[in-house]
Amino acid sequence: MKIALAQLDYHIGNFDGNLTKMRSAIEEAKSQHADIICFGELATCGYPPRDFLEFDDFIHLAEHSIQKLAEAARGIAVVVGSPSRNPVIEGKDLYNSAYFLADGKILHVQHKALLPTYDIFDEYRYFEPANEFQIVEYKGKRIALSICEDLWNLGNENPLYTICPLDEMLPQKPELILNISASPFAHDHAEDRIRVLKANAERYRIPLFYVNHVGAQTEIIFDGGSMVVAPNGKIVDELPYFEECIRYYDLDEVGRGEKEKLQPKDKMKLIHNALVCGLKDYFGKLGFKKAILGLSGGIDSAVVAVLAAEALGEDNVRVLLLPSQFSSDHSVLDARQLAENLGVQYDVIPIEKVYNTYMEVLEPHFWAHPFNLTEENIQARIRGNLLMAFSNKFGHILLNTTNKSEMAVGYGTLYGDLCGGLSVIGDVYKTEVYELARYLNRHREIIPENIITKPPSAELRPNQKDSDSLPEYDELDPILFHYIEKHQSPQDLIEMGFDEKLVRRVLRLVNINEFKRYQTAPVLRVTSKAFGMGRRMPIVGKYLA
Amino acid sequence: MKIALAQLDYHIGNFDGNLTKMRSAIEEAKSQHADIICFGELATCGYPPRDFLEFDDFIHLAEHSIQKLAEAARGIAVVVGSPSRNPVIEGKDLYNSAYFLADGKILHVQHKALLPTYDIFDEYRYFEPANEFQIVEYKGKRIALSICEDLWNLGNENPLYTICPLDEMLPQKPELILNISASPFAHDHAEDRIRVLKANAERYRIPLFYVNHVGAQTEIIFDGGSMVVAPNGKIVDELPYFEECIRYYDLDEVGRGEKEKLQPKDKMKLIHNALVCGLKDYFGKLGFKKAILGLSGGIDSAVVAVLAAEALGEDNVRVLLLPSQFSSDHSVLDARQLAENLGVQYDVIPIEKVYNTYMEVLEPHFWAHPFNLTEENIQARIRGNLLMAFSNKFGHILLNTTNKSEMAVGYGTLYGDLCGGLSVIGDVYKTEVYELARYLNRHREIIPENIITKPPSAELRPNQKDSDSLPEYDELDPILFHYIEKHQSPQDLIEMGFDEKLVRRVLRLVNINEFKRYQTAPVLRVTSKAFGMGRRMPIVGKYLA
Repeated sequence: MKIALAQLDYHIGNFDGNLTKMRSAIEEAKSQHADIICFGELATCGYPPRDFLEFDDFIHLAEHSIQKLAEAARGIAVVVGSPSRNPVIEGKDLYNSAYFLADGKILHVQHKALLPTYDIFDEYRYFEPANEFQIVEYKGKRIALSICEDLWNLGNENPLYTICPLDEMLPQKPELILNISASPFAHDHAEDRIRVLKANAERYRIPLFYVNHVGAQTEIIFDGGSMVVAPNGKIVDELPYFEECIRYYDLDEVGRGEKEKLQPKDKMKLIHNALVCGLKDYFGKLGFKKAILGLSGGIDSAVVAVLAAEALGEDNVRVLLLPSQFSSDHSVLDARQLAENLGVQYDVIPIEKVYNTYMEVLEPHFWAHPFNLTEENIQARIRGNLLMAFSNKFGHILLNTTNKSEMAVGYGTLYGDLCGGLSVIGDVYKTEVYELARYLNRHREIIPENIITKPPSAELRPNQKDSDSLPEYDELDPILFHYIEKHQSPQDLIEMGFDEKLVRRVLRLVNINEFKRYQTAPVLRVTSKAFGMGRRMPIVGKYLA
Repeated sequence: MKIALAQLDYHIGNFDGNLTKMRSAIEEAKSQHADIICFGELATCGYPPRDFLEFDDFIHLAEHSIQKLAEAARGIAVVVGSPSRNPVIEGKDLYNSAYFLADGKILHVQHKALLPTYDIFDEYRYFEPANEFQIVEYKGKRIALSICEDLWNLGNENPLYTICPLDEMLPQKPELILNISASPFAHDHAEDRIRVLKANAERYRIPLFYVNHVGAQTEIIFDGGSMVVAPNGKIVDELPYFEECIRYYDLDEVGRGEKEKLQPKDKMKLIHNALVCGLKDYFGKLGFKKAILGLSGGIDSAVVAVLAAEALGEDNVRVLLLPSQFSSDHSVLDARQLAENLGVQYDVIPIEKVYNTYMEVLEPHFWAHPFNLTEENIQARIRGNLLMAFSNKFGHILLNTTNKSEMAVGYGTLYGDLCGGLSVIGDVYKTEVYELARYLNRHREIIPENIITKPPSAELRPNQKDSDSLPEYDELDPILFHYIEKHQSPQDLIEMGFDEKLVRRVLRLVNINEFKRYQTAPVLRVTSKAFGMGRRMPIVGKYLA
């Protein structure tokens, strides 16, 4: 038996686009004499469809896609994910289902039992968990269908669910497992995936075929990395990261599990490729081509500019240098050098004149009050306004260049430097932004060395340094990591050796700045805990605030 | 037996504040010789605590509160909601629990079984559903404890769950039901609540005591309206809306159910009181006193100004009139009249000079391109920048004045008029904003009649009217309502008699403007489907777009 895994980039709600893509994959797989082709979880409608699932019309369109795919499933079986209706009145109205299509019809449907409802996942919001488990027989093979999380209750110290769906199927003696997934990227997630799949192989001792999505849906990036696991636990193959790909496997060969084949997992390379993928798909799926951003001469905007040029092509990236009277000469020089290294269009528009006009207009109201954060924010907001003006006039999407450390502690101006349609590095800590810059410069110096080595500054008042108001990033970032990603308490952090005063100050900054993050662009997610949909905090909360 | 219902305003994460409040209620109830006092769901930590629940330290603080409340529970029993830990490794780590505290200790804990995970609710994100149901005996009475949603699988055409927790307790012959809730306001929700509670009384034929939260947590407003239901289905009492309140009931008297007592439910009064409550608590819980907003001379900002003055006091509201060369004379006059009627501080700051400076600076780049949306947005963003400058300089929170119709179709400038820390009327359709204005004027003309009667305009270009780019609001709003609140499809709407071209245009506008709403302030929720946490849509989605 020959099994094809189709690791594709779907588009949420784009039923025609997804259907066309799957049909042509079916044709290709037929020409390769595959017996079964597997697509991803909820592939008809894309993942995550979120509240579109609450529209009956949307479900109807998904059903229509299944019908069309069933018609294409002649001479080949098709495994594909799609929402299905729960005929029972009690419980949620939908299931998250794996369809087995063959001979022009629906041969079998298995629903998902373990519904991830944490971080960015909201599946129990929509779906009833499966309570029946039935294998399907095809061409003499007993096949267990499962969907993503259904395999994930094994291999964890603290399992989230009380059952393992595969255990429920064991009495039916399945001979192989097909798992269709939508498992998003985090830079350390591929290793979790391998651990979990190996735990399943160890338990069930049958071949396991796991197919993932690839491509980004707003902030969520799917890295692919689909896998084939032998009964002996060997990873027979791992599909490429961030690439669409169809591969074919002989079931008997997989059963023998003769050798293991895994890809290298370099953290910076993975983050880099994820961000490029996230940018590309955000623009592609929204039907935009061109990006704009402000180049300050600092490292964050430099890194975003390079990523954007890679993702969209340098001809589609435009940058503005928006110096004020507080900008240093080297900032403009560095930014200009970077723009030239990249070959992107750039303009220098000093903001002093606009700033002075604001000051003039505000003078009758502000004269008694000294220069403070207000005037700093005005500068950032003038830049936001100018960038958005270009964006509106010429059809660019403005890229936000804030990093995760700044977002965490609220070091940024709402409606100013926090503007932008997409936050490119909002899930990358400042210390990692430097690593990323080095990675981007691995072949040649695109980002001028001076941008990487000078001390970070917002340049909103004379001689300002980030370290005037924040701890050094190499002190700050580990605290943020342990609090945000690891949910450590102040006590835990103090016991780990961090300074108590600093810990309390940092955690307070994180918690009182929830209101800013609420209004910030979606953040490309590259860690296990990014700001945005996956981290839901009360704004008026009083905890550690 | 005398039962006290304490309908209180808790504050998320403010364990000390919540504890102090509950302790003084316990003292009061003791002085009234109550046998049992009931607080709300998750009252120790406030509702909804969201991802604070993922912090072990947060749970520890809740446990500490329970311990302190148990110590206070001497001579009286205390029923209170709090998270508790699941000792079993499999499944989620927490339960959403009702504690029965008496004689200085925890007498019983009943977990919640039905975990709302829809709209603004995310309970399955954190909690394992209860699978054991045990009544508690106290002073010779067999009491069924239940938590909010646990009662809500009755009285609906399409129940969301497959069990009713009270059914599971029936063999233990409970004599009364105590339900602790956190059930948020929507203008038509009190009626649902009555229907559901009556359905429970009808089924179980025992007295039912239902206590709700009151007060707002960012966008979610709890209206109180706690209820006592007799076995015969009569609502013996309904506690006031939007007010903290402790009331006492004799169990036998409730058992007789002699008369029904319900409050009037006037839609505009409810919405008005909800918004005032939402404003008051947003400021109070964040520790702010003063609001600022821009008065355009239009109806939206007028209504928000009046609501803010009611909620915060006119001395705490400051308004800016920010006319441009496109503003009509009457706008400034009307806005000025309103500010004087209200008695709030106002300043007139023409934006023309700043606008002209932007134009001058942009001229080298924009000269070949005609005036369009770009220049309109620049004006809106200058206003945003000036308002935020005052907010930063003087410590005001900027109020957003966008209505639900505009938010739906994206008729607003990101970082311009969409600025603000809280969206006050973002869940009120434009046609309802007029009703609300009439309601605010019910005693005297606060909002000048001209503001209510003139055609709506953004005044961002000469002689602009909203109707230049949008359908009339009385055509638009019903389409929005049926799509957003009722999830109707284009087909449904066309069958209802709406013009097909208009329907497709409006639905497309709603769906392509998700990116704007993603970056907008939290919206005070007054309908069953508000923008924000309760409506989660993909940005790159292609459905109806």
